[in-house]
Amino acid sequence: MPNIKLVIAYDGTGYGGWQRTANAGKPCIQALLEERLTALLGETIHVIGSGRTDAGVHALAQTANFRCRVRKEAGELCRELNRALPEDIRIRSAEVVKNSFHSRYDAAAKTYEYHIDLRNPANVFTRRYCYQEQGELSEERMRKAGALLIGTHDFAAFSTSRGDGRSTVRTIYDLSVERRGDAMVIAVTGNGFLYHMVRIIAGTLIEVGRGERRPEEITEMLAGGTRSLAGWMAPAQGLYLKEVQYEHI
Amino acid sequence: MPNIKLVIAYDGTGYGGWQRTANAGKPCIQALLEERLTALLGETIHVIGSGRTDAGVHALAQTANFRCRVRKEAGELCRELNRALPEDIRIRSAEVVKNSFHSRYDAAAKTYEYHIDLRNPANVFTRRYCYQEQGELSEERMRKAGALLIGTHDFAAFSTSRGDGRSTVRTIYDLSVERRGDAMVIAVTGNGFLYHMVRIIAGTLIEVGRGERRPEEITEMLAGGTRSLAGWMAPAQGLYLKEVQYEHI
Repeated sequence: MPNIKLVIAYDGTGYGGWQRTANAGKPCIQALLEERLTALLGETIHVIGSGRTDAGVHALAQTANFRCRVRKEAGELCRELNRALPEDIRIRSAEVVKNSFHSRYDAAAKTYEYHIDLRNPANVFTRRYCYQEQGELSEERMRKAGALLIGTHDFAAFSTSRGDGRSTVRTIYDLSVERRGDAMVIAVTGNGFLYHMVRIIAGTLIEVGRGERRPEEITEMLAGGTRSLAGWMAPAQGLYLKEVQYEHI
Repeated sequence: MPNIKLVIAYDGTGYGGWQRTANAGKPCIQALLEERLTALLGETIHVIGSGRTDAGVHALAQTANFRCRVRKEAGELCRELNRALPEDIRIRSAEVVKNSFHSRYDAAAKTYEYHIDLRNPANVFTRRYCYQEQGELSEERMRKAGALLIGTHDFAAFSTSRGDGRSTVRTIYDLSVERRGDAMVIAVTGNGFLYHMVRIIAGTLIEVGRGERRPEEITEMLAGGTRSLAGWMAPAQGLYLKEVQYEHI
C-alpha cells in the first residue's frame, strides 16, 4: 500500500483547526482532507498530520501522510485533490514515501512564525494574517528575551496544557526576532511545542517589546513553571506553521 | 463650516462597493462612513467620494470630503473615526481643506492597480486580494497591448456602461505592466474611468498575456467601440484604487 506524504498550505481563518476540537461549528482541516481523499480514491482514507494547529492558525507547510490501495501518480493526485478542495487549502506537493514514514513520529523539528504588523493606522489587508500592534516594539528587547528561551527548558509557564502528567520539557533550537519592512516576525524552531506555547511566547515577547516586562523576566517564568508568570497569549491569526523537518524520508 | 478631506483605505471583500448599488445585502462604505460620522459629530453628515468603487474592489487611498459644523482637530477626528469604524475600513488621514474643495469634481487623475498572483498552486493567503492565474503570462505581450491604450480614446468597448448618451472618451496618461516577485501588477492612471473599465482592461491584457489574443487587437477594440470586441472582465478582488490626484487643495 503506497504511503503518500502531503505538504499542505492553509488559510486557517475559516477553520476550527487541524483536528476536531471544542471549536464545533467550523470544519476542521484534517476531516475535510479525509472526506475529499475518500471520495477521490473510493476507499476510506485516514490522514495523519505532523501535529495539530489551533483554530484560526495558518500553515505554509503542514505535513501529513496517508496510506491507500489505489496507485495513482503523485502529481496527478495533487492536482485532483486541489480541484476537490476549497481554495483556502492547497496541496503544495504529494510524494510517495517509504512505508515506515509517519508524519508525526518522524518529525525532527518544527518552525513556527508569528507575524506582527506595526503600521498605524492598521493595514486593512493584513487583519486576518497577522496581529496588528499600533505602536513601536523594541526589537532589541525582544531579541534579548527570545535568546533566554533557546535551549532545553521546562516550558510549563508557556502552555495551557492541562496537567496530564506528560513532560513539559521541550528544546528550542532557534528563536529569531526580525524586522521585515512594517512587520516584525518571530520565528521559533523546536523539537516540539506544548499547547498554545508559540502564541504565549509571542505574546510575552510583545509585552517585553512594549516595555511592559523586562527581558530578564523570562528566566523567572521558566523557573517558576506557572502559566500566570508568563505573558499574554497572542491571537491565532498571527501564527503560521512554517516548516516540519524530517531527517530521512 | 469646515470642509474635511479624508483619505481612506478599505478591504472591499465584505462590501457592496463605495455607494449603494444593486448589490443589496452587503453594506456600502459611503453609507457606513456617513452613519459613523453622524453619530460621532451629532449632526447629519454627507460624504462625497472621489468616485464609486464596485462591490469587492479595494482601496489603498480613496478620497472623500464632508462639511460639518463641529470644529474638531483633524488628527483627533481621524483617531475617533477609526475607533468607530470596522477594522476593514481605516482613515489614513483627515485634514481641513479650503471650502471649495470637492473630492469628485476636483480629481485630476486616478490610479488603479490590478494584482495578479501567478503562483501554482495558488497561494491561500492572497485569494481575497488578487486574481490568481495558474500559468505564465507574457509581460512583453501585455506591455505591448497596454501601450496601445495610452492616450485619449473612446473606451466604449472597455465598459459596461449603459448607453446614456454620455461621452465614453477618456484619457489614459500611463499604463504599466510590472512583475513584482510572484505577482504581475497592471497600473493605470487616467483622468477618469468608465464603469468596469479597469477590470475589462485587466481581463483583456490577461488574455493577451496568455496568448489568446494578439496585442494589436487593442487597436481594433478601440476603433470598434463594442463591448463584445474587448476581453473578459477580470474579477473585483484584484482591483485597488491606489491614488486620487488633485492639482491644488
